[in-house]
Amino acid sequence: MTERPLIRLNPGADRRVKAGHPWAFSNEISPSSAARSVSPGSVVRLEGDDGVKHGAWHFNPHSLIAARLLDADPLAACDAGWFRARIGACLALRDRLFDAPFYRLVHAEADGLPGLVIDRYGDALAVQANTAGMDRALPDILAALRDLLDPRVVVARNDAAVRRLEGLEEQVALLHGTDGTATVEEGGLAFPVDLLGGQKTGWFFDQRPNRALVARLAKGRSVLDAFCHLGGFGLAAAQAGASQVTLLDRSEHALDLAMQAAARAGFAERVTPLKAEALEHLERMVASGRRFEVVVADPPAFAKTRKDIPAALKGYAKLARLAAGVTAPGGILFIASCSHHVGPAEFAEAVAWGVHRARRGSRILASVGAGPDHPVHPALPESAYLKGQLLALD
Amino acid sequence: MTERPLIRLNPGADRRVKAGHPWAFSNEISPSSAARSVSPGSVVRLEGDDGVKHGAWHFNPHSLIAARLLDADPLAACDAGWFRARIGACLALRDRLFDAPFYRLVHAEADGLPGLVIDRYGDALAVQANTAGMDRALPDILAALRDLLDPRVVVARNDAAVRRLEGLEEQVALLHGTDGTATVEEGGLAFPVDLLGGQKTGWFFDQRPNRALVARLAKGRSVLDAFCHLGGFGLAAAQAGASQVTLLDRSEHALDLAMQAAARAGFAERVTPLKAEALEHLERMVASGRRFEVVVADPPAFAKTRKDIPAALKGYAKLARLAAGVTAPGGILFIASCSHHVGPAEFAEAVAWGVHRARRGSRILASVGAGPDHPVHPALPESAYLKGQLLALD
Repeated sequence: MTERPLIRLNPGADRRVKAGHPWAFSNEISPSSAARSVSPGSVVRLEGDDGVKHGAWHFNPHSLIAARLLDADPLAACDAGWFRARIGACLALRDRLFDAPFYRLVHAEADGLPGLVIDRYGDALAVQANTAGMDRALPDILAALRDLLDPRVVVARNDAAVRRLEGLEEQVALLHGTDGTATVEEGGLAFPVDLLGGQKTGWFFDQRPNRALVARLAKGRSVLDAFCHLGGFGLAAAQAGASQVTLLDRSEHALDLAMQAAARAGFAERVTPLKAEALEHLERMVASGRRFEVVVADPPAFAKTRKDIPAALKGYAKLARLAAGVTAPGGILFIASCSHHVGPAEFAEAVAWGVHRARRGSRILASVGAGPDHPVHPALPESAYLKGQLLALD
Repeated sequence: MTERPLIRLNPGADRRVKAGHPWAFSNEISPSSAARSVSPGSVVRLEGDDGVKHGAWHFNPHSLIAARLLDADPLAACDAGWFRARIGACLALRDRLFDAPFYRLVHAEADGLPGLVIDRYGDALAVQANTAGMDRALPDILAALRDLLDPRVVVARNDAAVRRLEGLEEQVALLHGTDGTATVEEGGLAFPVDLLGGQKTGWFFDQRPNRALVARLAKGRSVLDAFCHLGGFGLAAAQAGASQVTLLDRSEHALDLAMQAAARAGFAERVTPLKAEALEHLERMVASGRRFEVVVADPPAFAKTRKDIPAALKGYAKLARLAAGVTAPGGILFIASCSHHVGPAEFAEAVAWGVHRARRGSRILASVGAGPDHPVHPALPESAYLKGQLLALD
């Protein structure tokens, strides 16, 4: 291991790293020849200018986040065996958290594997390698996964836009196995999932506890699930006894998969798919007087970058106004944002403003985040991207 | 109703009220003769200097929060019948949220009843009237409660320090019935509660979902419940199959009640009460090597006022350091703050720092608040006082 490159931090740039932060930025790296010549995704040793050893890191000289912590031991192997141990710890934690093998198995920095995301659908795995280091380590990661879980299929969903920041191309590929379809089981329901063609890795595990939260309030009620994707919220509500569920989404493919799940569960007659742009359709429903006793509005991220924030906040306020507008008197509204760049306080303010503009009084019953299989690194609180508000409207 | 006093806002001071905020501050009130002569706790009409009517408010010329919104209708009766309707709406919401009559029935501003808190223990009620207006309205509130719930006992826990800001004395009294004891049922357990002599109203309903969250991770594990009060967290863990539970509190009376609950549930042999100052005892346990697989640290508020904030943050960091120190490798730590004056971000930062100082890696599995019977008013996000973090330690 003596050939592992040594990268040094600039004087004074080690404060954050010493406090446990798992990143070093490009302007904090001493511009040594090593820092210039190391190829993207290499494992390096990182030291302060005081000679303090900060462990083994993934390094990418072309990325703003130049170094990402792998191990406090600068000589840790960072090979297939190392990945096996790290992913094994993630598996042990999920085994403790969940009764069945459907969850986010690895959630990047918070799980000690920066830039790596793995979702588990029983014997099928969807992998996102969002950094040059993890992209380069994919063979070791695959070996570790085979060793731990012997999966039927592994799909690489390397089509996240963040890969561009690392100089990586976007691609979706079968890494192992022959079939990109899978099933996710949740709350007594089975949803068919398209690992290759669906949104992100196919299913949004992050909203699992929030789907349960809403479902508990839906018995005997009419429900609208706007931006429903595969119908996770709406079908959980139907399973909990909702009288009628409307699934609203622009994707016919997603609605088809949702209706397959509803048919399999035996309550398709209580579920109506509606293919339309959700915001436009909500506007029409407000005007036409269509109302629901429980409304869910869980859109894709409105802010993809920092400069989108003002427009995104206007968007959330508008969505809150329209969603409150279709909520019956005394009804329940769940509204969520998965925009990394919108903080919980500003999201709450936008929602409050939208609901006020709809002239509806409200109580916030719960402010929620993602489920425990999406842990947050204590030094990266801003990575808690999912924000949901459960409101009781007057 | 023509004799209801008219209070006017200063020019420009109506912006917040128009946006739905339920308070007006003393420096926003036009110093008319009415504003000076109205007795504390009167119901008044509030208008802007533009003549816009803002409804009926409780008014207290001696309080910084001079006016609190009761009703958008300036001529709303605000009598026993009005309280019956408002409390009835709170009751309908709780009936929907919970299967059994044990909950916070009224949570002040968020429930449209500023300054009024009512906890329900089946047929026993504990009332806090924390403003001059609600104090004066107690006879109407009692009449409404009798009409709605026919309670066996109603206790006034008017010993909150906030009453002093309203010029009210602190007192605890039986308003109705003869017996200040009650039972709270939660998660299959029955806890004896002392409505007259216990902390606050006797039981902390706010942590209910968080007790369930921790209990699910406690099966077969050793558990420490520090600052346990009546043992809510620890006994929920015992009920869920914890191998051994240590209850740590300074109050012998609280520990006695907790052990009564454990005995009634038939698992007292797995529960050990420990009477001690929690912080000091944690320090001794860290030194002596005593470790637990699940640790709960849920102390009373460290910051009673704004000027306590820096000391409180140091306190939370110290508590996190000690609590992490007694958590076994791979263990779970739940730590909470009920300090109104400490925000969620600064609490999270203090916890992260304390855990880092204990030299423990961690994942934040969940950042949680109070249960849905403690709703938040959308214009008062800072009233979300309870913050909890569920951590998996390395």
